[in-house]
Amino acid sequence: MMTKRIGLFGFGVVGQGYYQIAKKQKEQWVPDTIVVKDQKKRRPSDIKFSYTAKDVFDKNPDYILELISDEKEAYEYVTEALKRGITVISANKKLLSAHLPELISLQKVFGGKLLYEAAAAAGIPVITNLETHFEEDTIISLEGILNGSSNYILSRIFNNGLSFEEALRMAQQKGFAESDPSFDINGSDVSSKLNILILHAFGKFVGQEQIATFGIQHLGDVEINLAKALGLKIKLMAKADKDYRGISAQILPTFVEESNSFFGVENEYNAVKIVSEHLQEQFYLGKGAGSLPTGAAVYGDLIKARNGFSYNYSKVNFDKPLDEKLLNLGVRVLFRSKSLEQNDSVVFSPEYSIHLDGYYYTVGKVKPKNFSRLNEEGGVSIVALPDSVSAEDVDYAFREIQKSVEVV
Amino acid sequence: MMTKRIGLFGFGVVGQGYYQIAKKQKEQWVPDTIVVKDQKKRRPSDIKFSYTAKDVFDKNPDYILELISDEKEAYEYVTEALKRGITVISANKKLLSAHLPELISLQKVFGGKLLYEAAAAAGIPVITNLETHFEEDTIISLEGILNGSSNYILSRIFNNGLSFEEALRMAQQKGFAESDPSFDINGSDVSSKLNILILHAFGKFVGQEQIATFGIQHLGDVEINLAKALGLKIKLMAKADKDYRGISAQILPTFVEESNSFFGVENEYNAVKIVSEHLQEQFYLGKGAGSLPTGAAVYGDLIKARNGFSYNYSKVNFDKPLDEKLLNLGVRVLFRSKSLEQNDSVVFSPEYSIHLDGYYYTVGKVKPKNFSRLNEEGGVSIVALPDSVSAEDVDYAFREIQKSVEVV
Repeated sequence: MMTKRIGLFGFGVVGQGYYQIAKKQKEQWVPDTIVVKDQKKRRPSDIKFSYTAKDVFDKNPDYILELISDEKEAYEYVTEALKRGITVISANKKLLSAHLPELISLQKVFGGKLLYEAAAAAGIPVITNLETHFEEDTIISLEGILNGSSNYILSRIFNNGLSFEEALRMAQQKGFAESDPSFDINGSDVSSKLNILILHAFGKFVGQEQIATFGIQHLGDVEINLAKALGLKIKLMAKADKDYRGISAQILPTFVEESNSFFGVENEYNAVKIVSEHLQEQFYLGKGAGSLPTGAAVYGDLIKARNGFSYNYSKVNFDKPLDEKLLNLGVRVLFRSKSLEQNDSVVFSPEYSIHLDGYYYTVGKVKPKNFSRLNEEGGVSIVALPDSVSAEDVDYAFREIQKSVEVV
Repeated sequence: MMTKRIGLFGFGVVGQGYYQIAKKQKEQWVPDTIVVKDQKKRRPSDIKFSYTAKDVFDKNPDYILELISDEKEAYEYVTEALKRGITVISANKKLLSAHLPELISLQKVFGGKLLYEAAAAAGIPVITNLETHFEEDTIISLEGILNGSSNYILSRIFNNGLSFEEALRMAQQKGFAESDPSFDINGSDVSSKLNILILHAFGKFVGQEQIATFGIQHLGDVEINLAKALGLKIKLMAKADKDYRGISAQILPTFVEESNSFFGVENEYNAVKIVSEHLQEQFYLGKGAGSLPTGAAVYGDLIKARNGFSYNYSKVNFDKPLDEKLLNLGVRVLFRSKSLEQNDSVVFSPEYSIHLDGYYYTVGKVKPKNFSRLNEEGGVSIVALPDSVSAEDVDYAFREIQKSVEVV
């Protein structure tokens, strides 16, 4: 087989993982040009680096791997490549989430292909499976743990009894969380990924800003102890559902029962559950972070592209607008706030309420549209509550918590 | 798109599932000829049936769906179709397990394609993922629950306290087990599937008769109560490993710990865990039986074939013989037998032994090569034991069992 010209943008965690795999597997997949930004950074001396995108494009590459984190630069390189009909592999969820409709058009118009498995759940081939195995099945819901850092933090809190701050520090030491971990823990990284997956599952582009998102940063001891008292865990769940009315989606810390497949998803693992009409229920679990698993997903995309595989976007009806307005259906939650007024203005269908240590805790429904405002108001915590956990269960757990405090 | 001619062999559980999906999704995928065997059986009056394969082949079909259970007939139709260069979708694990090397050759020589996702884990796209996402990754181990009936039986025993006989009857009533369920419970169905998966994971054909297989039919109350006393479950696990020495594989009832992903796989679900060098660990769970999930896997294969997808058999080195002799490494088990001689002739590295109600129970290692002989000798039970369950744990559990008997 003739050697292909491959240009690589970025030599961070994912780029290095890809490079290591290509070097070992097949010399022909080792990039001939690697563009990095920072000229001062210490890098392996046996690899030649470039500092300008021109070095890649001048060589008329067959494939471009876009593995940088900056969204604006990535947009420039990827659109340029697609306009030249080049096949691009990207792991950039921010870019994809922001520009998918345009990037799909560019593929259609210029014939270049764009694959991006690593952008959704790192090593787990969820986009590939949605585009092949589920191609003509009707997806009913898609649910997942899509951020390894926040899942690692929650694992340390629930399995090792660490505080949120201790767990976050540990995640940073392990390299699972960025030095600025806010995108990981506030759910923003997850909402990029869910936005991408919604397009492949339901054929609609909802846009990240529409996906109501509440991260794990507001979780307090009470929510954590309540979960423990009931034998539950809290996981940061991304969820999208479709029915005859339309699509609803949100990202919320969620009480998860032991019988739930996600209960055992720990540390840096990601997992996705797809419910569809014919295949019914499938659950995929794999590494959601790490140099090799993510690099291997990029490498896998390249092999798939070489074999002629591309996304058919089979769920998309191109005769209709790609954009879709999300429904704003109430979600059953445990809601915490400092003021009764805030509580009453947001929670409807209340089932239970308790005042504890200056906070109001209520079981009831909250509309996703309110999440972003509540995120900013402070003092608020929202944790989704499965229907099978009754108000009586919550009441029991609150009594248990208070008992243990009294004993101390 | 021009309508394709599709011939369907078989209108059992899978054929009907396929038909129902095709009818709803796309008229063009509804078979124009359906061949069934039994002319006297009551069938839907709105569908025209044929009773000879000639009716299919005379029409020069583009695709043939082989969804019958008879291996010999299936061999005839599938080889005939492949020799004509026709694309075939099969769900027949017996056929595939027996004849894969020849069926691969026929594809290579005549250009017809053969896809068979439904033959491995029904709805779970494990072959597709091995052939795409894992195409150039090195598989280290593959493990799975691959038979829905025996898993359903074990779920009823462990979750509802039924006896083996009651659980089997219930599985038959639910339609999960055949009227002759021996292939389900003796592991023979699982060994066909593992034989197929080993080829896609490791590129070697080991042959079903080489895979040491022990089913769930010899499980006794003692093994079940022992598991319960230790908070374990027993699952019928298929396992294949590869290292520098070669491939080892066996099918054994296995004590499974709560921390194991397979612990929560219940009822008619199947699950597969793949460990590889780069993607590391992935776990897939989905329906392993049922008309719609299995029919959907067949339908999915047809869509993939239309998109140009075929198996690359990328792990196979076609310059070398496809056949491979399995290693015969000892497996750590709890071994039960009626005679001390049988025990001593089979178990090595013994760690623990106890004599109870006329049986000898020993924790030690057993070579897979002995399984088939032991299967026939009677009175023997073999349950694989994870290393983390110590001989002391087993001793504790035996004392607990004896205590509870004494109390009664």
